Amino acid sequence: MKPMEIEEKSFAIITAELGDRQLDEAAAPIIKRVIHTTADFDYADSLYFSPGIVEVAVAALRGGADIVSDTNMVKAGINKAALGKLNGDVHCFMADADVAEAAKQNGTTRAVASMEKAAETLAGRPLVGRPVAFAIGNAPTALLRLLELTREGKLSPAFVVGAPVGFVNVVESKQALLESGVPCIVARGRKGGSNVAAAICNALLYLAAGR
Amino acid sequence: MKPMEIEEKSFAIITAELGDRQLDEAAAPIIKRVIHTTADFDYADSLYFSPGIVEVAVAALRGGADIVSDTNMVKAGINKAALGKLNGDVHCFMADADVAEAAKQNGTTRAVASMEKAAETLAGRPLVGRPVAFAIGNAPTALLRLLELTREGKLSPAFVVGAPVGFVNVVESKQALLESGVPCIVARGRKGGSNVAAAICNALLYLAAGR
Repeated sequence: MKPMEIEEKSFAIITAELGDRQLDEAAAPIIKRVIHTTADFDYADSLYFSPGIVEVAVAALRGGADIVSDTNMVKAGINKAALGKLNGDVHCFMADADVAEAAKQNGTTRAVASMEKAAETLAGRPLVGRPVAFAIGNAPTALLRLLELTREGKLSPAFVVGAPVGFVNVVESKQALLESGVPCIVARGRKGGSNVAAAICNALLYLAAGR
Repeated sequence: MKPMEIEEKSFAIITAELGDRQLDEAAAPIIKRVIHTTADFDYADSLYFSPGIVEVAVAALRGGADIVSDTNMVKAGINKAALGKLNGDVHCFMADADVAEAAKQNGTTRAVASMEKAAETLAGRPLVGRPVAFAIGNAPTALLRLLELTREGKLSPAFVVGAPVGFVNVVESKQALLESGVPCIVARGRKGGSNVAAAICNALLYLAAGR
């Protein structure tokens, strides 16, 4: 079997196992892709979609949105061919030497410093004025700083994928995102991860650009 | 809180929630790290460890083992600083142009062709004779081809981390690995993923190299 046939068969199994469950039509391809990536049906319940988010996100991606991620795993997992078709690019500043240095100097984390670098970078040419989305798959501190920078007017995300994972400040950071008014897709609860954040981005990209 | 404090607190929560459950002492740090990465306690039941695998894997990593992964997400997720301390490196051939070409010519998948490239590359200088481990986080076809190449004497893995995820051939490929006699850690069932494969490698690396 070819990879696309395996994927089709997998989606058929997922649809069958979801049974009579009614998924929101716009959200369904995203929910199914996350289950495909994790083999975890909990995501049928835990994914939150802000009103109109799928249309908003697809429009932003068709408008050439870049995506900023908090980890290189999210960056590695996003389908660059699909994003490139739409003239978008992915950025992750987490492992940059100047981010490590800024975190040290400011007594903060690299996750926080990477969001501050995003705000600076995206305010400069040639990125100024382009739509930008954020995909957070690991660090609740990155998500919280992103929301602060947004409140301060230093960032203006087209949408945010919020999927930090873990046991400390994770649930709270995702609750803050879904109460923020920022267009978002959120993996509520403790679960999430770089694979989940990338899968959500890819599902949106396939809606926006096709495969 | 600093990242290491958050991690310590997270591991304390995981240990508390595991309660009275007795984990194998050697396996415990690996099980806990996978739960830390996924927030999914199913891994306390689903992870399989072949006899003596933790000692085998730690010895291989201390001996400078390289790791070959099936995805760039696994590669991105492996702690290169810890691996580098032990003079190891990570390779992922999946996105190489010659792998895409070979897959096309042979009517196979890039996942399969990437394992064949691993066999060729690792047989050549400067890699010949070095121990090599495999971390499979996505493609059951990569895992099955890896096992074939091993049976044919074209690869000799020090150990294999088997964590493909999904609905088609995934369970079967992992069953084949745990029946193969190859030293392995396996995420049984449908669940797994690049994050799980990377987390298992990192847990082994921290045992071998410290943080």
